[in-house]
Amino acid sequence: MAGARLKHYGWGREGEGMSAGERRFVLDRYHAKFGTDEFDTIAVPRLEDLSLRKPRVLPPASLVSLCTTEHYDRAAHTYGKSYPDYVRAMLGDYECAPDVVAYPRNEAEISAVMDWAGSVGASLTPFGGGSSVCGGVEPRIDGIKHKAAVTLDLRNLSKVIEADPVSRAASIEAGTYGPSLEDQLKPHGLTLRHFPQSFEYSTLGGWIATRSGGHFASLYTHIDDFVESVRVVTPAGVLETRRLPGSGAGPSPDRMFIGSEGIFGVISRAWMRLQPRPKFRAGASVRFPSFFDAARAVRAVAQAGLYPSNCRILDPQEAYNTGAADGSVAVMVLAFESGDHPLDAWMARALECCTDHGGTTGPGKASDAHLEGAAGIWRNAFIRMPYAREFLTPAGLINDTFETAITWDRFESFHDKVKAATERAILEATGVKGEVTCRFTHVYPDGPAPYFTFHALGRHGALLEQWQAIKNAASDALISAGGTITHHHAVGRDHRPWYDRQQPELFVAALRAAKRELDPQGMLNPGVLIDP
Amino acid sequence: MAGARLKHYGWGREGEGMSAGERRFVLDRYHAKFGTDEFDTIAVPRLEDLSLRKPRVLPPASLVSLCTTEHYDRAAHTYGKSYPDYVRAMLGDYECAPDVVAYPRNEAEISAVMDWAGSVGASLTPFGGGSSVCGGVEPRIDGIKHKAAVTLDLRNLSKVIEADPVSRAASIEAGTYGPSLEDQLKPHGLTLRHFPQSFEYSTLGGWIATRSGGHFASLYTHIDDFVESVRVVTPAGVLETRRLPGSGAGPSPDRMFIGSEGIFGVISRAWMRLQPRPKFRAGASVRFPSFFDAARAVRAVAQAGLYPSNCRILDPQEAYNTGAADGSVAVMVLAFESGDHPLDAWMARALECCTDHGGTTGPGKASDAHLEGAAGIWRNAFIRMPYAREFLTPAGLINDTFETAITWDRFESFHDKVKAATERAILEATGVKGEVTCRFTHVYPDGPAPYFTFHALGRHGALLEQWQAIKNAASDALISAGGTITHHHAVGRDHRPWYDRQQPELFVAALRAAKRELDPQGMLNPGVLIDP
Repeated sequence: MAGARLKHYGWGREGEGMSAGERRFVLDRYHAKFGTDEFDTIAVPRLEDLSLRKPRVLPPASLVSLCTTEHYDRAAHTYGKSYPDYVRAMLGDYECAPDVVAYPRNEAEISAVMDWAGSVGASLTPFGGGSSVCGGVEPRIDGIKHKAAVTLDLRNLSKVIEADPVSRAASIEAGTYGPSLEDQLKPHGLTLRHFPQSFEYSTLGGWIATRSGGHFASLYTHIDDFVESVRVVTPAGVLETRRLPGSGAGPSPDRMFIGSEGIFGVISRAWMRLQPRPKFRAGASVRFPSFFDAARAVRAVAQAGLYPSNCRILDPQEAYNTGAADGSVAVMVLAFESGDHPLDAWMARALECCTDHGGTTGPGKASDAHLEGAAGIWRNAFIRMPYAREFLTPAGLINDTFETAITWDRFESFHDKVKAATERAILEATGVKGEVTCRFTHVYPDGPAPYFTFHALGRHGALLEQWQAIKNAASDALISAGGTITHHHAVGRDHRPWYDRQQPELFVAALRAAKRELDPQGMLNPGVLIDP
Repeated sequence: MAGARLKHYGWGREGEGMSAGERRFVLDRYHAKFGTDEFDTIAVPRLEDLSLRKPRVLPPASLVSLCTTEHYDRAAHTYGKSYPDYVRAMLGDYECAPDVVAYPRNEAEISAVMDWAGSVGASLTPFGGGSSVCGGVEPRIDGIKHKAAVTLDLRNLSKVIEADPVSRAASIEAGTYGPSLEDQLKPHGLTLRHFPQSFEYSTLGGWIATRSGGHFASLYTHIDDFVESVRVVTPAGVLETRRLPGSGAGPSPDRMFIGSEGIFGVISRAWMRLQPRPKFRAGASVRFPSFFDAARAVRAVAQAGLYPSNCRILDPQEAYNTGAADGSVAVMVLAFESGDHPLDAWMARALECCTDHGGTTGPGKASDAHLEGAAGIWRNAFIRMPYAREFLTPAGLINDTFETAITWDRFESFHDKVKAATERAILEATGVKGEVTCRFTHVYPDGPAPYFTFHALGRHGALLEQWQAIKNAASDALISAGGTITHHHAVGRDHRPWYDRQQPELFVAALRAAKRELDPQGMLNPGVLIDP
């Protein structure tokens, strides 16, 4: 948590962003896409020009030292990083700013803030790095049940408490950001190796609460399997699950909190399973005539029991957009890593699977191809891309992603239906042909996790409605065709209509019942995942 | 479900059991162990001599075709296969026999039986193969809330409904027994490869409801990860989770029902992830100077990312008892299997890990060592062992197992404490020195699943109390030392006191709240896992 403070609008910290060259690359692609050399661009209000309502509640004397009602803190905790978040921030709409932001330093202070928030009828929003792209961290009040909004920022719970190098595990506080977590593990020779795109600006607790998808394209796709035990502060008390490598004692208690998005309590720390630092690597980028050819190769690799750390494919247009290829071929980024043994046998068999499905490898040494060529270009674009939204949105461009999962038997028709529905919605909503591309982020023996990106030329004054129309069409299509509304971005409030269609009503009823037990006042993240 | 009917007392079907030679081998070991050449042996009552109370309820006309109150059916559904089950059956105690046994043929009939059972105030016990070793299938009435007991045997839901060879998955009815399940998958070239010790006499639904531990010693240890979606008939209605290879949409609904031991509803079918039939195998048995040396080798293999299908170790005494070694060495049974590729690189590296920790391999070809020598002998003993209890119990011998999991950092002291506490309890309870041995059944990067076996010379008239004293001491020790009360045998009623200590009270409160939603009358398996 060193360095400048986080931006109230945009990705990362103040002073950070894309270079002029990166901006030009991104904007030139959009100029070419929409046949124009200029976009109608509006100004984003400065922090000091934002108007926030007077706080409806003030912290009691006992909590003053860890709470603030400062303008910056309230503005910086109003939104996550979704497209509609950027639009509303750009329009100066800070209606839902929290009244108070609390920075507890330990579990007792989390409980104290909960007790106080409950006593004044405030909603309570747990906040990690604030990188939610689905409306998961926006405070919510309804004026009736919730008369004010308090946000609980976990950044001061940022330590690796204990490392166990024998079992390869560590107890880590939930507010620890990605880079700090890795820095603290390094002296122990260990790493979590969980690298979501938001890695620099997201926290362990956020990853667990949202079932974050990470570095590993296969096997350990979500954070879920790395959780050995959790501690959770709920309004009804603190609970801790037992630290075990495996158990068959009833339904898993960890799994009830993994993905709970803050509705049951605040994850305060967790014992996490760790990896050795990799000593051996093998990687390649492989070209395929088409996306479906590449997908069939991915299926072969995923069903072979080889467990690559990377096995991501980009369709031809997405490969072109990120600079990884010329638009005529699909690209696979394939990699194995191990802290234990050379990977020649693994890589050789995976490449055979690729060749079987029309794949050809590019030039370059196999051992470091993961950092070179198409793979390296894609990886860089992947990490830098979140910085684009802060200037694309003011330019009236609608650029967003959505992700899902589907079994292999349905994948090809699923892909075509979802892509067509999204393209059609873009044309209908904006009057201009847009673009929809697809890649795989994670793969399983029984199916892939397709990740769609879309680009549309919006119109200022209508951006929210245009985005919502596209989002609705895409989400309707993927739910109708059997997918999940999210593979690793979480549900939040933005995905609620489709989550409600996806989950069995009786399961949701069970979640609501569990919430009444742990959060009787329904103060935690109202409207996220369920309505209490 | 072809062949003779299941025994009402004993393992498997009528007419099956150990050969005279197998019996002699087992009994001779006990004679040597306790320095005697004869045990005080009592007779087990014949089926026709058992006295069952008159049924307290009778099925209505609409359910007569699928319900029975026959003597055999009620007796055969009274107990599971735990040690105290055998003792009580041997003593002719059938107090808890169900009044009615229902054999529904579809979900509508499950619902109809539920509705009727609810209307007459009966408890309802779901029953798969009845192989529970923890009091999970014994009907329970309390005379107040539950005035009668109905058991729901799923054996007629026994079909593979649909296979998807592209995604390698199949929709399978919950009452399907292991052998039938594999027979039905074979024409599709697929296999579940879930082979618990009870494989022949247990069902898919039972495996899911109890988080059964299977064939794979690493990675896919429990049935959990093979579940793609489930259908559950609850008193509040039928629910089905979405068929997905992976999802991040809130807490996993599947995980709420995996391990729920019938308290929320009756699993009626599931989409299961399958394996290809193995084409490549590599195996070996490895000897170690001591159990802890072997354990350190297991840790190295488990942390290497090699994922062996078998990586089980036996301590010297357990290796001797099963005929796998002479009692001077610990034995590891190591195997890899693949439907895709040769395993030389995997096996070579795993054997290096063994050598690093003092392991030496025996003679025999590596490719089929898994069926030969120590490994083969152990495997045969493993499958045949459940047949021993039906004659060991009448001989006054107390022979039982318990299993757990613990992280590597605590394993050695954990092992010593649990073993010593159990040995001490045997001596105190029986006055005769007993024997406690240990093996690993499953392994994880962060810890093993130790499986303890104990042998004691009991006294007729006191067997239940003696067994309970030993069970209490062992369970207290493993819970105090940080383990789980069960890694894959489930909780049932026998493990409740320690499950209650293991699980956070707030999590159990959430389970109770979920149950009130799905089973408002609390009719399903009362006392299993939780008290409603």
